[in-house]
Amino acid sequence: VTTSIHPFSGVGRGSGADLQLTFRARGGYRSINHRVDAGSLRLYRWYYSRICQWILGTIIAVVLLLAFVERPSSLSISSDPRHQSNRWEPPCGAPESVEMLCLFIFCLDLAVKSYLIGWEEFRKSKWLISYTVVICVSVVDWVLSVSMECDEKLRVRRLVRPFFLLQNSSLMKKTLKCIKRTLPEIASVILLLALHLCLFTMIGMLLFAKNAWELHFKNLTTSLTSLLVLLTTANNPDVMIPAYSLNRCYAIFFITFSIIGTYCLMNLLTAIIYNQFRGYLLASQQFAEQGYMDQQQFRRIFDELDKDCIKEHPPLPQYTSATLQKLQVVFSHYYLTVLGNLVALANVLCICTILVLNSEKSTEERDNNVLEVINLCFILFYLSEMSVKIFAFGWRGYLSYRSNIFDGFLTVLLLILQIAIFITYRLPYSQEPSSRGVMSLWEMVRLVNMLIVFRFLRIIPDIKLMALVASTLLDLVKNLRAFAGILVVSIHRHISDTVCVRSSVFSMDNTTSNFSTACGTYEQLGYWPNNFDDFAAAIILLYDVMIVNNWQAFMEAYSRYTSEWSKVYFVCWWLTSSVMWVNLFVALILEYVTFLFLTVPGISVRSSLIPLACFLREQIQEPTEEELACQLHQHPHLHLEWRHEHQNIRPSLPSLRP
Amino acid sequence: VTTSIHPFSGVGRGSGADLQLTFRARGGYRSINHRVDAGSLRLYRWYYSRICQWILGTIIAVVLLLAFVERPSSLSISSDPRHQSNRWEPPCGAPESVEMLCLFIFCLDLAVKSYLIGWEEFRKSKWLISYTVVICVSVVDWVLSVSMECDEKLRVRRLVRPFFLLQNSSLMKKTLKCIKRTLPEIASVILLLALHLCLFTMIGMLLFAKNAWELHFKNLTTSLTSLLVLLTTANNPDVMIPAYSLNRCYAIFFITFSIIGTYCLMNLLTAIIYNQFRGYLLASQQFAEQGYMDQQQFRRIFDELDKDCIKEHPPLPQYTSATLQKLQVVFSHYYLTVLGNLVALANVLCICTILVLNSEKSTEERDNNVLEVINLCFILFYLSEMSVKIFAFGWRGYLSYRSNIFDGFLTVLLLILQIAIFITYRLPYSQEPSSRGVMSLWEMVRLVNMLIVFRFLRIIPDIKLMALVASTLLDLVKNLRAFAGILVVSIHRHISDTVCVRSSVFSMDNTTSNFSTACGTYEQLGYWPNNFDDFAAAIILLYDVMIVNNWQAFMEAYSRYTSEWSKVYFVCWWLTSSVMWVNLFVALILEYVTFLFLTVPGISVRSSLIPLACFLREQIQEPTEEELACQLHQHPHLHLEWRHEHQNIRPSLPSLRP
Repeated sequence: VTTSIHPFSGVGRGSGADLQLTFRARGGYRSINHRVDAGSLRLYRWYYSRICQWILGTIIAVVLLLAFVERPSSLSISSDPRHQSNRWEPPCGAPESVEMLCLFIFCLDLAVKSYLIGWEEFRKSKWLISYTVVICVSVVDWVLSVSMECDEKLRVRRLVRPFFLLQNSSLMKKTLKCIKRTLPEIASVILLLALHLCLFTMIGMLLFAKNAWELHFKNLTTSLTSLLVLLTTANNPDVMIPAYSLNRCYAIFFITFSIIGTYCLMNLLTAIIYNQFRGYLLASQQFAEQGYMDQQQFRRIFDELDKDCIKEHPPLPQYTSATLQKLQVVFSHYYLTVLGNLVALANVLCICTILVLNSEKSTEERDNNVLEVINLCFILFYLSEMSVKIFAFGWRGYLSYRSNIFDGFLTVLLLILQIAIFITYRLPYSQEPSSRGVMSLWEMVRLVNMLIVFRFLRIIPDIKLMALVASTLLDLVKNLRAFAGILVVSIHRHISDTVCVRSSVFSMDNTTSNFSTACGTYEQLGYWPNNFDDFAAAIILLYDVMIVNNWQAFMEAYSRYTSEWSKVYFVCWWLTSSVMWVNLFVALILEYVTFLFLTVPGISVRSSLIPLACFLREQIQEPTEEELACQLHQHPHLHLEWRHEHQNIRPSLPSLRP
Repeated sequence: VTTSIHPFSGVGRGSGADLQLTFRARGGYRSINHRVDAGSLRLYRWYYSRICQWILGTIIAVVLLLAFVERPSSLSISSDPRHQSNRWEPPCGAPESVEMLCLFIFCLDLAVKSYLIGWEEFRKSKWLISYTVVICVSVVDWVLSVSMECDEKLRVRRLVRPFFLLQNSSLMKKTLKCIKRTLPEIASVILLLALHLCLFTMIGMLLFAKNAWELHFKNLTTSLTSLLVLLTTANNPDVMIPAYSLNRCYAIFFITFSIIGTYCLMNLLTAIIYNQFRGYLLASQQFAEQGYMDQQQFRRIFDELDKDCIKEHPPLPQYTSATLQKLQVVFSHYYLTVLGNLVALANVLCICTILVLNSEKSTEERDNNVLEVINLCFILFYLSEMSVKIFAFGWRGYLSYRSNIFDGFLTVLLLILQIAIFITYRLPYSQEPSSRGVMSLWEMVRLVNMLIVFRFLRIIPDIKLMALVASTLLDLVKNLRAFAGILVVSIHRHISDTVCVRSSVFSMDNTTSNFSTACGTYEQLGYWPNNFDDFAAAIILLYDVMIVNNWQAFMEAYSRYTSEWSKVYFVCWWLTSSVMWVNLFVALILEYVTFLFLTVPGISVRSSLIPLACFLREQIQEPTEEELACQLHQHPHLHLEWRHEHQNIRPSLPSLRP
């Protein structure tokens, strides 16, 4: 019997407190808090002998496998209800008697375990208490089931069976504990995902509400489901096709959603889970600690970076009147921003409610006037908030915050729109509303609503977690230029390959006449807008193949209309984009998050923020003087006279070093 | 102007040689090897000024954006050929004149660059020479294009345009270099993926050749395409449904393929790319080096592990006759194994050829006799190989290699099958072949072929890369028990939730009558075998949702037949399985590969192999004596008399430490 420390006292999560002394057995860690008299020790050795534990494992497997033979049993050749003729059902009582035997053995197991650790320890062990409860529930449910001759509606004991497997493996219990500890971090990112989803749902509903493609955005539930499924890419081209077919600009909405949601946020989740479980399997304890920069070193770098990154704001304007000074204190307070955020939230909720109410009505029935008046009130509030802030911070102070510029710009835009609406529809001498202008009232209100939803994004810097994730994403995007460049190059090359030889490889012109007669997946799903007819269309097609969902439809259609070799083209693009580029992107996100976890001891996603942009500057290191000298020595245009008597060669080159 | 070292001299890839002195400019690293006279320096400063570089960047953007307006232009509202009415095409000459302007500026750029670095340096720079060539080609193509009045078939200069972007960004050039360096590693894994694909294609063709589901496995190309697409999960339930509908056991084939290919190999690729690019972005140079165990420390651990892992083989048998001894040397030589592998490869290729030839014929026309005779010859060779090896190594020596057990077992099985075929079909007094036995000749030959393909797996340990990856996967699987347990628990719980309340939530019985009338995606695609009618079917359904492709079909069907709340159930399962569990799995693979890269300086996938199983043993660390004593002090059943006069408390507990 060897002893061990807790294997989960992993990287960056204070390992001292987790230290727990356990005895190691085959596949588990057992508490040493058991009786130590001779009889108990003999029982202990017998209980933890290989044969006993093997029997227990078999019994657990049997209990879990019972699900295959219990009614409805899985003992038929096919699970297709159209083919199913002879499903063999066990006689009532056969699986039940096996189950009773297993339950009896579990009772024995519980008794031995409880005896060995004693009453005091038993009371403290939540797992053993739950074990008792689960066995009791199973027995009661078994009795009920037998008394009802296997015709019960609900078998509770099926629900609790997996517990036996969990209970028996200490390693599994600890994995579960580790997963539980990771949950808050995961929940944070999932929250962000939910916000992302809601925001895009609203924009989508506003964008697509009127038009013909009501299939995917007809009401709140449908829109939410459509976008949730798009997050997993499972309905990728299909959800986009109706809108994209009408106007190619709508593709931007879907592509933005996928890039933020699927590529960034989902991969961030992977990175966080990876870093939480880092060091879980492997005993790289001291090795991982070597990996840390020490606290002081880190602090120094961080301070240096702060100098670059924190921007100075101009001083507040000085007012002479005491009332004005008091007002200035009130208006420059943080709570004003919070109030502004709350009002923006209320506005968005308001729009959302009216959208849901309107989704059942036709376009004509919808009452836009109420919504418009409500919006006007909110916009007046935004305007007053803006002027009050300008009063408190002064003109230059107001503009020195980027969030204020964002707010102010959108508020002014909203005001202009509202005035336009007022002039066009509210003035007494206005003509018939429907006959006038470029936009109808409905469309104008829709635009206002979208701007308001967009303005709601101001809350992002105020929620710490979101600020962290958002700035991570922004930093990543900023620093991905090289990668994005390579992607652009490869897309460009791929498309050029195709478009310039398009007439020989594939021409939609031949098939334009028979849109209705063809019957492959491509035609059935109406993938016509995805073609190589021009550059923009080709980009969207290649994007769809990169997402990989339903790419076989494109492959099949193009190999049908042209030759089998077009399959090679698609496979090449898949390898370039989906395999290479997406993996590079995942690697970068992993690298960034790992860097955060490794360098800052005890960091969690919610606790701290280091802008990547700052760290990247550190990448440029000064070469040593010797390297400089060596390189200069080989310079083809610079003929320096080296003084060979001095071995330490340090030429002075003021012209090269400003 | 500051100086920098090469930012790519990353982790684990000898950084000394890569050291390169460059001057840093905005977004790039420039060589210092330029002229240093006053005029040149002025020109140099002007050329690298912000405004000049900005103009150059704009020109490159313009050249790349030209693709949107050139014929066929993207300037139409929709890309759908059914809606397309008025595509605006620029007049011939308009984009061409813009392009000429751009090309002229590139010429200027090239001239200035070449002048600044001089002829000697120009000759050495591959990028500048390529730049010259690309400009020349573009100009020639441009002249041709204009002379043909924009009616040319192939525009070569479109193909070379992305080069301008690449050429201008040093950072991008270096990223490309880094990608190039990663390619061999990636190619290795892709090779393995290709082998995996081919093997499963052959098994699939043998398994599904005769039956009705010829859609996905009717010939070599179709099978290969189907499985390649399955690797990306894009046709997940569809490819499985016809076979699964006939017999539920066929699901195992597809699930095995996906787990090995999609989950293991593809994630291995991610892990390798991640580790190749680790340290690419961030300046964690010395920090990464701290992370290494030093070579000696590693060697010590490795030696210790070797002791556990390398198995002793029994000595070769001693023969007295000189001829026998000579024969023993020949037969125990490594080349015999190589020969065996080559013969196995020939056999598989043989089967593959006949399969391809047969795929055009109907079942009756197929000539199984030729194949059967060929197989007989190969099996006789295998048999002689086996006996010769037993002669050389002795009975116990032969069995001490696991690969020999695998070979021998399959060879004996093949022999028995061949004898069975001979007895049934070749003996003169045999009856009509079709009327007899459980299997037809065709099915028996098919079984033999499958076993031969399976036996071909013997090559795996002989190819180093494959051995590494395969053992990595095996180790991972072995050590994933805790995770797999949790997955089993969550599947079990999820299914129990459903199956036991199935009568209230969803009953297929109501809908069995109208299979043909319903018309959702679920019904159209014939997803009937995926239901919650029994445990095994429910497992496959949840597996399909975990893969996420087309999961919206299940969600939609179940919310239609039951209530909207079933959506919540599916979303929960998606979060549990796809988001949580798959990410955990990815994290583990990443952890393992990262561990390999971090601990072994200069390791690459192809160079070395550390079984994870061995390292995992290290996870169990001895606690210090003090921790032991402290824990024992708190033991509820053990009342030790502490001698308080000795501060160093070391109780002797022989009974607890065998």
